[in-house]
Amino acid sequence: MIDFESILTNVGRHVELDAEEAEYFISQLTFRRLGRKALLLKEGQACRNFYYVHSGTLRAFCRDARGRESTIMFAPADWWVTDMYCFLNGRKAMMYIEALEASEVFALSRPQFDVLLERWPKFERWFRILMQNAYTREQLRAIDNLSLPAEERYVRFVEKYPAIAAQVTQKQVASYLGITPEFLSSIVRGRGKGR
Amino acid sequence: MIDFESILTNVGRHVELDAEEAEYFISQLTFRRLGRKALLLKEGQACRNFYYVHSGTLRAFCRDARGRESTIMFAPADWWVTDMYCFLNGRKAMMYIEALEASEVFALSRPQFDVLLERWPKFERWFRILMQNAYTREQLRAIDNLSLPAEERYVRFVEKYPAIAAQVTQKQVASYLGITPEFLSSIVRGRGKGR
Repeated sequence: MIDFESILTNVGRHVELDAEEAEYFISQLTFRRLGRKALLLKEGQACRNFYYVHSGTLRAFCRDARGRESTIMFAPADWWVTDMYCFLNGRKAMMYIEALEASEVFALSRPQFDVLLERWPKFERWFRILMQNAYTREQLRAIDNLSLPAEERYVRFVEKYPAIAAQVTQKQVASYLGITPEFLSSIVRGRGKGR
Repeated sequence: MIDFESILTNVGRHVELDAEEAEYFISQLTFRRLGRKALLLKEGQACRNFYYVHSGTLRAFCRDARGRESTIMFAPADWWVTDMYCFLNGRKAMMYIEALEASEVFALSRPQFDVLLERWPKFERWFRILMQNAYTREQLRAIDNLSLPAEERYVRFVEKYPAIAAQVTQKQVASYLGITPEFLSSIVRGRGKGR
């Protein structure tokens, strides 16, 4: 028996669905279980879905020609994640999405996303707010990345996302902040000493 | 006589407004002329408006404690720009928005934005697409910034935004790419030699 309560609560934060709308929405979702380290999306694959993280934590990352990984975002439970450009434009994925631990997701495909928006105005509102929040988050990240020294960026990251910071490796955090793992390690050691 | 054609064409790319909707929308806009170097928004001010660039080019930037500027975004004609976090959350602005040349904008205030979305479902759709595109742009920028070397980021910037690249200073581009002006200058010189 799949539990739809958390995703309905997620939607319910911004719009009030009636029974018919909730039922239709739920009928569109595809449930998937992922083992730790499983890949939900690979570079070069068609990016067909927008994912809601029901449980666990996902990480979206790119890999450069030398195999070095850059973390684009972490997506803990109750977040939405996809390679947005490729999802919207029908392009092959530029990123990987992996499960950092055993996780469960709901997938919404592009045609389902379109029909949902076309047929149910409340979902326009809901996705407008979702996209708006995602844009705001990325704009804040650009501000931090461009204007703060690495140590402060790390401190802000831990303050903003304590659950993620506690769960992922230093190497993954470093690749999210755009600094080397060695440099992050020296920051963390330095802060430990100061206390 | 203010010309509303370009902003109505901007909206018309994603939704078809009828005469009443177009008239209401236009009635909400406040027109402003800005001289070169004029500031539309200053750090610490209330960020009350979402701006559409009718003509000219704007630049959003932050200033750190040492006065060093980081360019958050460039907004040429037909783009929308604001300090999104502060606009949505009623906080004081974290950034500056300046006119890089004599420019004209339309301003939409937060209460007007809310009423527009509440009363006219087409604007939900339109702003959903606007926010979605802005999010996509920032996600692509994060991918580029994290995974590409500085030279390639510069090349991509010039390819994506040729009109902006031709118009702004190297120092402003460097601060958008998160590199020093000296380093960008060496990249540009190096590319010139290779041709």
